[in-house]
Amino acid sequence: MTEDRVDAVGELEAERDELLNDLKRVAADFENYRKRVARDQESLVARAHERLVKELLPVLDDLERALQAAEEHQEGKLEDGVRLVQRELSEALAKEGLVEIETNGHFDPHMHEALLSQPSDQDEGAILEVLQKGYRLGDRVLRPARVVISQGE
Amino acid sequence: MTEDRVDAVGELEAERDELLNDLKRVAADFENYRKRVARDQESLVARAHERLVKELLPVLDDLERALQAAEEHQEGKLEDGVRLVQRELSEALAKEGLVEIETNGHFDPHMHEALLSQPSDQDEGAILEVLQKGYRLGDRVLRPARVVISQGE
Repeated sequence: MTEDRVDAVGELEAERDELLNDLKRVAADFENYRKRVARDQESLVARAHERLVKELLPVLDDLERALQAAEEHQEGKLEDGVRLVQRELSEALAKEGLVEIETNGHFDPHMHEALLSQPSDQDEGAILEVLQKGYRLGDRVLRPARVVISQGE
Repeated sequence: MTEDRVDAVGELEAERDELLNDLKRVAADFENYRKRVARDQESLVARAHERLVKELLPVLDDLERALQAAEEHQEGKLEDGVRLVQRELSEALAKEGLVEIETNGHFDPHMHEALLSQPSDQDEGAILEVLQKGYRLGDRVLRPARVVISQGE
């Protein structure tokens, strides 16, 4: 056996050992990453909720104040309080991406649910009345708008 | 060079190539996993919010009905409506883990904020009055209860 051959075997062994070490290291990093991701996802959801829940605390406060006004028979104050609560809740949900579904125009089965259709002088499929508002969160319809549509004349 | 040596070199080369392939595969899996995690986290937060926001839609509906009653000067109906809204909102938030902070007993700086202290016949540090309710989400204090405490006699 020549010196070169001995070198070649030695080099190959060193190369193999290095690759084996790299493989072990990458596999360990991967495993640690997986574990961290599992922990992170839990706290991510918890934190996301925390922010939204925190924004709703003033709504709870103002509801209680409104009820206090009701108990003291201050009807004007009660009504103002309820208006405030509605604005606060709507704004908190709008910040989360909640949007009211449009009902001006024609029936769209992706966004509207027709509970009734009745003859009218409007075009077939025109929305005549909104029975319950619909909402979407970004592109996702959370609840279709429940509507009465026209059958045409 | 002997036959054995040739075998040894060939085996080492095969071993090295296999390890190199394994390393490339694991590294690629790792990279794909990272990308998937980034996508998942976005949709995880979106889905978590979606559920909570969806639960709050009936609260919005009932608020609107209550305001409708107010416009029609049906004060009794308005008050009932507001009570319903408060119950719904409290229940939706309780489901998320929201808990009112206890204020029966002694001042605890981890959960209470003393806005005033005044002389009273109660022990020093006793909570005399709650000015604003406090809330926690699991172990985390979202907002301390704002209280008046006793200075003692």
